[in-house]
Amino acid sequence: MAIKWVALDWGTTNLIAYAIGEEGVIIDRIHSNKGMSQLAPSEFEATLLNVIRDWLSDNHCMQVVACGMVGARQGWLEAAYSQVPCSPVEMASVVDAPTNDPRLSVRIVPGVCQREPDDIMRGEETQIAGYLAKNPSFSGTICLPGTHSKWARVTHGKVQSFTTFMTGELFDLLTRHSVLRFCTASDEWDDSAFLKGVETAMLNSDRLTAHLFGLRPRGLLSGTDNGLLRAHLSGLLIGAEITAMREMWRGQDVVIIGDPGNSRLYQIALAQNDLAPLIYDGALAIVDGLTPVANAWACARGCA
Amino acid sequence: MAIKWVALDWGTTNLIAYAIGEEGVIIDRIHSNKGMSQLAPSEFEATLLNVIRDWLSDNHCMQVVACGMVGARQGWLEAAYSQVPCSPVEMASVVDAPTNDPRLSVRIVPGVCQREPDDIMRGEETQIAGYLAKNPSFSGTICLPGTHSKWARVTHGKVQSFTTFMTGELFDLLTRHSVLRFCTASDEWDDSAFLKGVETAMLNSDRLTAHLFGLRPRGLLSGTDNGLLRAHLSGLLIGAEITAMREMWRGQDVVIIGDPGNSRLYQIALAQNDLAPLIYDGALAIVDGLTPVANAWACARGCA
Repeated sequence: MAIKWVALDWGTTNLIAYAIGEEGVIIDRIHSNKGMSQLAPSEFEATLLNVIRDWLSDNHCMQVVACGMVGARQGWLEAAYSQVPCSPVEMASVVDAPTNDPRLSVRIVPGVCQREPDDIMRGEETQIAGYLAKNPSFSGTICLPGTHSKWARVTHGKVQSFTTFMTGELFDLLTRHSVLRFCTASDEWDDSAFLKGVETAMLNSDRLTAHLFGLRPRGLLSGTDNGLLRAHLSGLLIGAEITAMREMWRGQDVVIIGDPGNSRLYQIALAQNDLAPLIYDGALAIVDGLTPVANAWACARGCA
Repeated sequence: MAIKWVALDWGTTNLIAYAIGEEGVIIDRIHSNKGMSQLAPSEFEATLLNVIRDWLSDNHCMQVVACGMVGARQGWLEAAYSQVPCSPVEMASVVDAPTNDPRLSVRIVPGVCQREPDDIMRGEETQIAGYLAKNPSFSGTICLPGTHSKWARVTHGKVQSFTTFMTGELFDLLTRHSVLRFCTASDEWDDSAFLKGVETAMLNSDRLTAHLFGLRPRGLLSGTDNGLLRAHLSGLLIGAEITAMREMWRGQDVVIIGDPGNSRLYQIALAQNDLAPLIYDGALAIVDGLTPVANAWACARGCA
């Protein structure tokens, strides 16, 4: 099947490229570790050409639509933030990235920011747009788990407000660099230990940094298994997030957008609180969110 | 002045040796980065001999009393934990470390543990003992700031219970390894930004991991200075600890034992909550806490 356009999720540490065919079908997918943080602005085009070289042909200009940190000030080209309340992807703020190769034409979507309190997203706005493209009348809360998890309130097709938590990054720091790295090193997982962590975090929500340390003496004194401690740690961090966001999910329609593993954890943590959130696949959401940009573009230029 | 004995604060990453003269005067002090974590059990004696070689003489056996992670299972020799409620340093649990050099005789004091919830300390119990040696009738709360900050309830000369927070280690992880490392890199400091962080943490005590992330967009959107963000981060973490421990300091006598810099931060954070805690120097507290062990030992062996 012919590739009609390319969707890019180009974040700080990774680049995921999707080859999109007729009717929005994902034909192929390439993962690269060439994230924004290792690239100077002048290196983005060559990096992209190398990653998607098999998808290009000499007599054709491929349309590429990108979201994520590629549009940050230190990325390829800055796509200025839209400020809430706003559509998740404001068409007027999409920018054309400079390219030299005639086989390539690249657009980057803007991120979304909030003032008082200050907050930012790049990439998640596209996932929200993707969900709204399929569910335009949705009104409720969208939870986007990840390195920097986000909770967004969405009504009337707009992001009204959002809050970011350092959940995924803290889990990574603690299991790789902290005193907990020994007692949480494990390939095992245990849902009940995870849910116990969620419960502990919710019962004593102001004791997070004591609960974190407490994993070490539990390993030393009670001989608790590393796999249980690792799952409990994850539960403590996700439980802290769910506690802080309780007004966002109590009595609300909640959709979780993320990778399947993370999304399932948030789903069972919320299920423990009598909520049944929907899960929408994070990769599909990226493609669905970038599709309207690709479609509008084709109309304007007619180069596809 | 002649050196009567040597006090050691031998932690995970550092070793501090104090040469003690007549009447407990600290004559000399040596700092080494030969912490417990880099040493196999067989390497402790040679390391110690090298660090304090200038204090030794051939015809004399020097008494050395040590506290800290040197007494952990993976240290020189395990000095088993005393369990609360207990005296901070139980004389019966002090152990003799094996030595080959006739110029050296080494004792290690035990740590303190707690069950339900599990918690541990090694080193801080000696500081508490030091304060109690000078203030035997103290009844109240002892706060010990540091990598793993501790709050202990002390009555009748015993540690009744305690709680450990990962405050110092989190500050280190976040400023060195996280997405905040850029926006908090600074040699500047600002007390009012610190106190604002304390206040923010106390007002919304369940939002810590969102407040942490929030420093980055504040830098990006509001252009807040790195030095202010660094102080604010410190305030968020210490404020979280103070919030969780409010029943430990409200209406209580509180003593802070630690290094001068850290102690001052806890003092001004508590002062913002109308408390006027005393500060007791952490190094003095180590020496004061090990002194009774050195004195009792001299009586038993008469080798000094």
